[in-house]
Amino acid sequence: MQTKLRREKLNAQLEKKGVNALLVATPENRRYLSGFTGSAGYLLLGPDYSQIVADGRYWAQCGEQCPGLELVKFRQEEFKSLVECAAAQFKGSGGVLGVEGRHMVVADFQALQRSLPEGWSVQPVEDAVETIRQCKDNEELELMRRAAQTADRAFRNALESLKAGIRERDFCLELEYQMQKLGARKPAFDSIVASGPNGAFPHAGVTDRLINQHELITVDFGCYRDGYNSDITRTIWLGQLNERNRFIYQSVREAQQRAVEAVRPGKTCKEIDAVARQALQEVGLAEYFTHGLGHGIGLAVHELPGVRSTSEIVLEPGMVVTIEPGVYIPGETGCRVEDSVLVTSDGCEKITRSGYQEIGQTHPLEAVGA
Amino acid sequence: MQTKLRREKLNAQLEKKGVNALLVATPENRRYLSGFTGSAGYLLLGPDYSQIVADGRYWAQCGEQCPGLELVKFRQEEFKSLVECAAAQFKGSGGVLGVEGRHMVVADFQALQRSLPEGWSVQPVEDAVETIRQCKDNEELELMRRAAQTADRAFRNALESLKAGIRERDFCLELEYQMQKLGARKPAFDSIVASGPNGAFPHAGVTDRLINQHELITVDFGCYRDGYNSDITRTIWLGQLNERNRFIYQSVREAQQRAVEAVRPGKTCKEIDAVARQALQEVGLAEYFTHGLGHGIGLAVHELPGVRSTSEIVLEPGMVVTIEPGVYIPGETGCRVEDSVLVTSDGCEKITRSGYQEIGQTHPLEAVGA
Repeated sequence: MQTKLRREKLNAQLEKKGVNALLVATPENRRYLSGFTGSAGYLLLGPDYSQIVADGRYWAQCGEQCPGLELVKFRQEEFKSLVECAAAQFKGSGGVLGVEGRHMVVADFQALQRSLPEGWSVQPVEDAVETIRQCKDNEELELMRRAAQTADRAFRNALESLKAGIRERDFCLELEYQMQKLGARKPAFDSIVASGPNGAFPHAGVTDRLINQHELITVDFGCYRDGYNSDITRTIWLGQLNERNRFIYQSVREAQQRAVEAVRPGKTCKEIDAVARQALQEVGLAEYFTHGLGHGIGLAVHELPGVRSTSEIVLEPGMVVTIEPGVYIPGETGCRVEDSVLVTSDGCEKITRSGYQEIGQTHPLEAVGA
Repeated sequence: MQTKLRREKLNAQLEKKGVNALLVATPENRRYLSGFTGSAGYLLLGPDYSQIVADGRYWAQCGEQCPGLELVKFRQEEFKSLVECAAAQFKGSGGVLGVEGRHMVVADFQALQRSLPEGWSVQPVEDAVETIRQCKDNEELELMRRAAQTADRAFRNALESLKAGIRERDFCLELEYQMQKLGARKPAFDSIVASGPNGAFPHAGVTDRLINQHELITVDFGCYRDGYNSDITRTIWLGQLNERNRFIYQSVREAQQRAVEAVRPGKTCKEIDAVARQALQEVGLAEYFTHGLGHGIGLAVHELPGVRSTSEIVLEPGMVVTIEPGVYIPGETGCRVEDSVLVTSDGCEKITRSGYQEIGQTHPLEAVGA
């Protein structure tokens, strides 16, 4: 069973971090380590612990989804809060309890400190589970490929409604509708459709602006499906581009391509980031590339490893990262090209597969398949 | 200016809580107190502080949206993180800095403790801003009415696609599509379409189940629009209901109606909760009403005041709360009826306005208007 294997990996991490057990409450980590898909509950994990604490809404569900874990039934009559119920499960002569430092809120942290039995102390640890989640197993990869494919197909379908004069908001809605029609539970994040000058904002969202011919349109979207996310960006246009826009687009495309080709096991994330930055440097656009190159993706849209100029993380087979250089010229326009790629034994494989519009094509459907 | 007024109210709260300033980072509180709609940034507020700390993505936006606040430009070269940049702004002989205890994560809390200047200490405070947010001003009420109306209209439109044999998932998608078509940025939360036995789960979500005739269908949905949320539930059916389902539906309808009629300034939330619980008690269904009666709603879907059996909060004009009793009979069926109501000077006003299907009506369109 996959979740049991993952919990064994966690135990090794906990030993490294010097804690006897870990309290897990973030939905993605909870699901990863137990299979539990409910919206509330604590896992108590470690060499001597394998429990799940949940309220009455989830008792039946825990039984079905988490066969390897002991269910601790939280009852409002016995404990004021879920975290206090979790605290009461720690027994013996004491130890160090790890908590998710980047996720647990101060109020819960303090309640935990107040209610742990004698001899136990609390220590925030960072990324214990997130580090394990970096490398995807086959079960995960299958779900991720499906989430990526759903986004690709939805994009193709949505493009049929793209014509000059449509509002950004309406094209975005069409795209999000198609993703769900094809099986996504919801968009993985607030989709971006940023046309013309709106493209200059990396996190533009959507507006009521009417999409025109001859301008760059950044479309950044993804599916949330069976717990996993996909993430892809295509910059597209209607009609012909002027020379300046062609130059910007080709530069970003080239930077993205070179970075994707550089992805292989053994490279550090910062080396990959540098490849894209160097490509944009060569054409004088590096100053407009104002964010990191990409991020890990899986149960969360943004997860380890960050693909940034400061990241020393070494790529390993099974990691899935986005490669998404962009250029944002204030007041003028913007452009980003993004794929999600799986690190393989000797390189990488794109799991997002939508075609790229080529100079001369007057509608993106010509690129993705009419 | 509304945000300035809100910040003055906050200063009074801070004095009560015994802190000199508050660091605000939750998106809803940030937007409420500053107008800033970006996805990252800290407000530093208090009698001697009125600053916003943000990274380069948001400098122009802060200038436009937060005229009353001084912009502190965070630069990666100067500080390792946003929270450390915020810490460095505190000057003078020291004091107590409040943080949002229910929202700030342990890692940021500890980074803040490490980096505050000499003489400053940190204290988690709870609900300082949330308490003020309970009573909505006119500007907010206008946005909330619009979010509610958008949901009402979308429901009416979506019902045209409701017929026996449609999957829960597809009807849900139609509803969410209509909400966005009519101006919502997105659904306020994962909508619920729970038919027949699925209705027995209060947080059912949607499944691939085909909707049948003669069964109860719980539809719980809302819009997120211009920062504000709406929330409404209707239980509906196709064809005729058997006696048992009629009994369950009428009982919940009656409980909801009586609770709504009880809402007025001066009542405590627990008194309102008790009205619905009493109504269900009278017909022997109280044991199946397994959650609180409702919650405040506004910038967040769930906010203060909670309308629960334990809440001593006294209703005041301007509060907006949901009233949503439900009955969940494991393995059999479920039913919930919900409206969002505004507490007025002498009672309350429903801001969600969709009609309720009446016994004998064979399609919900007959209730909401064909």
